[in-house]
Amino acid sequence: MHGKLIVFEGVEGCGKTTQIELTSEWLHILGVPVIVTREPGGTSTGIHLRRLLLEANNNAIDPRTELLLYAADRAQHVEQELKPNLAAGKYVLCDRFIYSTIAYQGYGRNLDMNLIDQLNTIAIAGLEADLVLWFDIDVETGLARKRKSGEAADRIELELIDFHHRVQQGYTTLSTMYPEKIVRINANQDKITIQNQIRQICTQRLPDLSIK
Amino acid sequence: MHGKLIVFEGVEGCGKTTQIELTSEWLHILGVPVIVTREPGGTSTGIHLRRLLLEANNNAIDPRTELLLYAADRAQHVEQELKPNLAAGKYVLCDRFIYSTIAYQGYGRNLDMNLIDQLNTIAIAGLEADLVLWFDIDVETGLARKRKSGEAADRIELELIDFHHRVQQGYTTLSTMYPEKIVRINANQDKITIQNQIRQICTQRLPDLSIK
Repeated sequence: MHGKLIVFEGVEGCGKTTQIELTSEWLHILGVPVIVTREPGGTSTGIHLRRLLLEANNNAIDPRTELLLYAADRAQHVEQELKPNLAAGKYVLCDRFIYSTIAYQGYGRNLDMNLIDQLNTIAIAGLEADLVLWFDIDVETGLARKRKSGEAADRIELELIDFHHRVQQGYTTLSTMYPEKIVRINANQDKITIQNQIRQICTQRLPDLSIK
Repeated sequence: MHGKLIVFEGVEGCGKTTQIELTSEWLHILGVPVIVTREPGGTSTGIHLRRLLLEANNNAIDPRTELLLYAADRAQHVEQELKPNLAAGKYVLCDRFIYSTIAYQGYGRNLDMNLIDQLNTIAIAGLEADLVLWFDIDVETGLARKRKSGEAADRIELELIDFHHRVQQGYTTLSTMYPEKIVRINANQDKITIQNQIRQICTQRLPDLSIK
C-alpha cells in the first residue's frame, strides 16, 4: 500500500498544529503508520532555510529570493522526507505545502503567479497531496490566538493586517478552484468538533482508512 | 555613466581570486569606482547559503535543492549588490555568475539544462554580464594548486576528477557559444602575464576604460 500525503493549511493561529497532533494520535491508534512534518524546515537543510526565511529581523530578503528559498526547502523535503515515507506506505501529515506559497507569496505579496507555479512545479517533481485540509478562521481571531500563545512573532506574522487578509482570500480562491482536493474546515469551532470533522473527512476521502 | 559587470570564471585553482585583486587595484589606480563580490555568498543572506552549499559534509543535499539555493543566492545578490552598484556607476568584479551554474550543475552534474536556464533567468531578472573572463587551466594543475594553498577542500572540490573535467568541458563549450561575451585566458601562464592580458582585454572590450 502506498502512503497518503495530507496537507494542513491556513493563516497564522488557525489551529493547524493542534489538529495535526490529534490526527496523528488517531491514525496511530488505528494502526496506520504516520509521520508529522512541515514546510519550511522538514529536513536538516530546511531547518537552516526556515531560520533564514522567518527571522523577524531579516528584512533585506528580496521577494524572489524568498520564493526560491521556499522552493529549495520544498525540493529537499520532497526528495528526502515525503517521497521515501510515502513509498514506505506511511501517512504523512504535512504542515503547509505549495498552497501556502500560492496564498502567502502569490496573493499576500502579489508576486508573479506564473513564477510561483513554475517554482512549485520544479520543487514537487510530480508529487501531489492526496488531501488538503484548509483551516478557515477569521484573520483577526487567528492572529490574536497566536499572540496569546506567547510565541515570538516571526517575519510573516509581522506583516500588516491587509497582507493576512489577502492570504485568506488566496485560500478561499484555491478551495473554490480545487474542491476535489481542498476541504474547507470552519476553524472558529472548538478543537474536538474540528477533530471529529477531520476524522470524517479523512475516512470519506481516503478509502484505505474506512476499512480500518 | 552606468557601471560594468565583469565576471571571473573557471575551475578550482584557476587563479581567479588573485586576478580579481590585481584587476581591482588597476581600476582603482585608474580612478574607476570598483567593488569586488562573489557568488555564492555576496550578501548576508548569501553567506548562510554559501555555507550550506559548500559544507564538505553536507552530502544529503538534493541536486534540485542545490540549484534552487544557487538561484536564491543569485537573486539576492543581483537585487541587493549588483544592480545598485552598477546603477551607481561602479565596475563590479564578480567571482562566478550564471556560467558557473551551467558549467558545474549542468555539465558537471548533468542536471537538466532547461531547468538551469529557467532558474538563471529568474535569478538575474534581466541583468547580464558585460564581460566574462574565463581562466582556462588544466584541471589537475588547478586542483593541485588549490590543495597546496592549504585551504580546506569544500564539497565541490571533493567531487571526482571526472566531474571537474566535465565542468572544464562546459566552460569550453560556453566560450565557443558566446565569443562576444566570454574571453578565454590561458591560466597556465604566470600571474603578471595574465594580468597584462586582462588589462588589454578590458580596455578593448569596455570602451569607457580606453579613455582613462
